[in-house]
Amino acid sequence: MRVLVPFTARDPKTRLAPVLDADERRRFAFAMLRDVVSAIRAAGHDPELLVPGPLDPPADDLGGDPSGSVDGADADPLDDSDADPLDDLPRTIDERPLTPAVNAALSRLGDGGVGELAVVMADLALATPAALARLSGAGGDVAIAPGRGGGTNALVVRDPDFRVDYHGTSYRDHRRIAADAGLSVDAVDSMRLSTDVDEPDDLVEVLLHGDGRSAAWLREAGFVIDTGGESRVAVRRSDG
Amino acid sequence: MRVLVPFTARDPKTRLAPVLDADERRRFAFAMLRDVVSAIRAAGHDPELLVPGPLDPPADDLGGDPSGSVDGADADPLDDSDADPLDDLPRTIDERPLTPAVNAALSRLGDGGVGELAVVMADLALATPAALARLSGAGGDVAIAPGRGGGTNALVVRDPDFRVDYHGTSYRDHRRIAADAGLSVDAVDSMRLSTDVDEPDDLVEVLLHGDGRSAAWLREAGFVIDTGGESRVAVRRSDG
Repeated sequence: MRVLVPFTARDPKTRLAPVLDADERRRFAFAMLRDVVSAIRAAGHDPELLVPGPLDPPADDLGGDPSGSVDGADADPLDDSDADPLDDLPRTIDERPLTPAVNAALSRLGDGGVGELAVVMADLALATPAALARLSGAGGDVAIAPGRGGGTNALVVRDPDFRVDYHGTSYRDHRRIAADAGLSVDAVDSMRLSTDVDEPDDLVEVLLHGDGRSAAWLREAGFVIDTGGESRVAVRRSDG
Repeated sequence: MRVLVPFTARDPKTRLAPVLDADERRRFAFAMLRDVVSAIRAAGHDPELLVPGPLDPPADDLGGDPSGSVDGADADPLDDSDADPLDDLPRTIDERPLTPAVNAALSRLGDGGVGELAVVMADLALATPAALARLSGAGGDVAIAPGRGGGTNALVVRDPDFRVDYHGTSYRDHRRIAADAGLSVDAVDSMRLSTDVDEPDDLVEVLLHGDGRSAAWLREAGFVIDTGGESRVAVRRSDG
């Protein structure tokens, strides 16, 4: 299945500004994008970027073996796990905002045998092949993995009559749009897919449950889990 | 499977104090408990309360048909859906804090053919029979549904060598305790089970995804979803 991943590198993740500067936010956003693209491929699907213009990705300096050595001395020349997942990735360039850009992409449905298309957000740093398999295996004319706070973090569309509207409480709106068009909706109950990483508190989830580039990047940047005195666990950046 | 539901009615849900007074928090906590117990029964399991003393539940005035009429004029006398789920519920009374009380209950494992025990928190207002079936169907000597922020919202224990420690980042601690005892752990990836309702922001999830007593109680209390001007959706209490 083709999986669109909308992404913009223009001042991404502004709500992380209390803990990351602009350059760091950009690097972390690309680390999450690489994790998402890798998980989509590992689930057996075909990722495709949906971007407003050319990308200029920072070096994938945590790629390959993010939890271990990066010197590559033992690298198997036939093992391409060190390859940047963004290399050779198909991309559609659309300068419009998210909703019209995705709807334009959805207009491919029904043409040339395209029976379904998925849209997966680029900040789902906890996405795993298993979670994405549950998304693609869900039934319905539309399958939605809701995000915390009522967003639509991932969806599969199987009917050309469906259109997205990402503004506001999009999960509720997408259910209504589907109902108005007589389409069935299946919800995907996944903590991993519900976790879009927008705010400092979300970084705790990446440190707890992530095992890819995003978690490695945060650890390299000095983030640790802070259990001291908080009613809910927080992150803390080490001084060292 | 026997499912323990720890609950205390002593000043519950203090972090909801910004939006609910003490009596309201108590009523809402009982609405959530009733939802959790109903979902456990509907999943085919046997709920059992773990409480520090006698309960004095408020009337289940939203029971039966929380979304519709409550006058009961059309009630089928053979339909017991109006019954309070807390009626005739087995309960263990243990005055100790959560961790020692649960560990005492877990000591039943291995005795008299008790092969597994589950512990499900009483504030999982979004728990459904399907989500609980994924919990009971998970493998491992221990199966854990993590909560947001690293808590342990639900778990199944199948080995008497496992002990809980709910203090701090218990999800990480429970994985370590299991590993130290040579036990396998399976994680349950469920947004519904990851959502323990502690803070005002959590009420959004209940209004969006709940269809039981908790959501009905919030609507009766005047809570609506507020999409205006927030980076993340919030709740607002109507003036009427």
